[in-house]
Amino acid sequence: MFKFPDHQVAGHQACRGQLGPLTDDSGRFYKPLQDGERGSKEVAFYTMFSSNTSIPGHIHKFFPVFYGTQLVEASDGSGLCPHLVLQDVVSGCCNPSIMDIKIGSRTWHPEASNEYIEKCLKKDRKSTSVSLGFRMSGLQIFECKESGFWKPGKKQVKDFTPEDVRLVLRKFVSSNSSVDSRNPDCSFAHSVYGGSAGILAQLLDLKEWFENQTMYHFYSCSVLMFCEKEPLLEGRASVAGIKLIDFAHIVEGKGVIDHNFLGGLCSLIKFVSEILDSSDESATKACDQSLQSGIQEDIISADNGQNQ
Amino acid sequence: MFKFPDHQVAGHQACRGQLGPLTDDSGRFYKPLQDGERGSKEVAFYTMFSSNTSIPGHIHKFFPVFYGTQLVEASDGSGLCPHLVLQDVVSGCCNPSIMDIKIGSRTWHPEASNEYIEKCLKKDRKSTSVSLGFRMSGLQIFECKESGFWKPGKKQVKDFTPEDVRLVLRKFVSSNSSVDSRNPDCSFAHSVYGGSAGILAQLLDLKEWFENQTMYHFYSCSVLMFCEKEPLLEGRASVAGIKLIDFAHIVEGKGVIDHNFLGGLCSLIKFVSEILDSSDESATKACDQSLQSGIQEDIISADNGQNQ
Repeated sequence: MFKFPDHQVAGHQACRGQLGPLTDDSGRFYKPLQDGERGSKEVAFYTMFSSNTSIPGHIHKFFPVFYGTQLVEASDGSGLCPHLVLQDVVSGCCNPSIMDIKIGSRTWHPEASNEYIEKCLKKDRKSTSVSLGFRMSGLQIFECKESGFWKPGKKQVKDFTPEDVRLVLRKFVSSNSSVDSRNPDCSFAHSVYGGSAGILAQLLDLKEWFENQTMYHFYSCSVLMFCEKEPLLEGRASVAGIKLIDFAHIVEGKGVIDHNFLGGLCSLIKFVSEILDSSDESATKACDQSLQSGIQEDIISADNGQNQ
Repeated sequence: MFKFPDHQVAGHQACRGQLGPLTDDSGRFYKPLQDGERGSKEVAFYTMFSSNTSIPGHIHKFFPVFYGTQLVEASDGSGLCPHLVLQDVVSGCCNPSIMDIKIGSRTWHPEASNEYIEKCLKKDRKSTSVSLGFRMSGLQIFECKESGFWKPGKKQVKDFTPEDVRLVLRKFVSSNSSVDSRNPDCSFAHSVYGGSAGILAQLLDLKEWFENQTMYHFYSCSVLMFCEKEPLLEGRASVAGIKLIDFAHIVEGKGVIDHNFLGGLCSLIKFVSEILDSSDESATKACDQSLQSGIQEDIISADNGQNQ
């Protein structure tokens, strides 16, 4: 039984009679093949990549599992249409917070046509791609059961400034994103970004691979970051991860590293590290303050003792 | 006593009545201030950077020492003209091999004018900047006392393909660059690129800094790589180093890392690492072969022993 994805944050959406991806109950994601070369390129990449034994296992896990292609009734009612069958990366999550982050200051590849380059360059310059080395393509952040998700519109996300991006990366790991929207508390920074299996560690694993791999260049490809906040709000363990998605613009690396993707990834890593560091600092401050007030209390109780 | 630099490989040259840099006998390099904003920007950068105490000492050493500005008789005979007074980074070297490598796939900064961006983009696409994340701006490679330097012309360097760049990086550390120009032996790879103080180690130090520093973005800036081959040819210790040069297009980092420079630097590091790795392999092969021939000799001598 196919349905519209519950948690799609970017790309073509299957609602309102349009062509878009579908999901099913078994945790699979059906992405209609894009027009022209793009669709066939993405199939070719998934086919080649999923059988490439030179990719280490801990890198393979950053890519959605690929189950081949399948003819499926298209969401726009146009009949049977070939779809990529992929792992639905957030199928097991309840109310996942998700950010789709397009990596690279340049979304065009060297051999693209002048017309295409001009179109991409305009978007790269208008968005934060050129300044930050990445841009948000879409997101949803879970606030609480009452208010549900914060899911800004396409236009709003497109107009994000560097400071908006920094704020969103903080909101993603905050418990008060709905209440205090300009001053997120980052109280989940350690549970989501930190730790040996957290998002920062995963990004660093990916970075290490990109410093060496010269097989593929990933243009216009996104890092999907996701986490569940509800369990954290209730003090339970949670899921936090990254996946690479969107491979319609992969080109051969020809023995050169993907310096465009790597640069953007390092910039994102720096943003995430800074959020972790600053939440360390505020935790230390809070600890100092409570120690300080503890000492004050000790002095008071000592005074009381002496004065008794 | 001012003179034309002996070993300038890129930029405006002071010969034939043109305006260009000068050197003196005390190891200083006099660079005429460039027209308009560029000159004042470079002075501002050197002034600010040289007094910036938050830059670690091991990073400061990758920049030429700055001695202020001075009015000097211009090389084109136009009279007194303000010059940057800098350390002449190759003044102590005898017949230095030098590569001027402009780092970054993009030489324009986000706030530049459309006209300037268009001009830069054209050069970046035509050269290896977009494909490799860096391009050669000029070079001289010492071959031997008889033939002197290989110093390709501006036009030839501008037309370098990725494979030419790879070849030049190999020639830079080879003893046979004049004899066998398509098959350099990389026999000095370990002395120049390798080791705890070699060029690769220096590039990695620089990389570590660029992963974190968010103060400056270095557009159109070069890594100057230099080494002396003559002492190596004679079995003596030699100098090998890198310096960053050309700061007319520095902009504020605004809390973001210089992902453009970092990406290009990582790409250059990969090229250098591969040359080191492949020279390791060929050394191992040579060692295996000599071991093998040693075993053969042992067998022969054992045979001889038995047959005596």
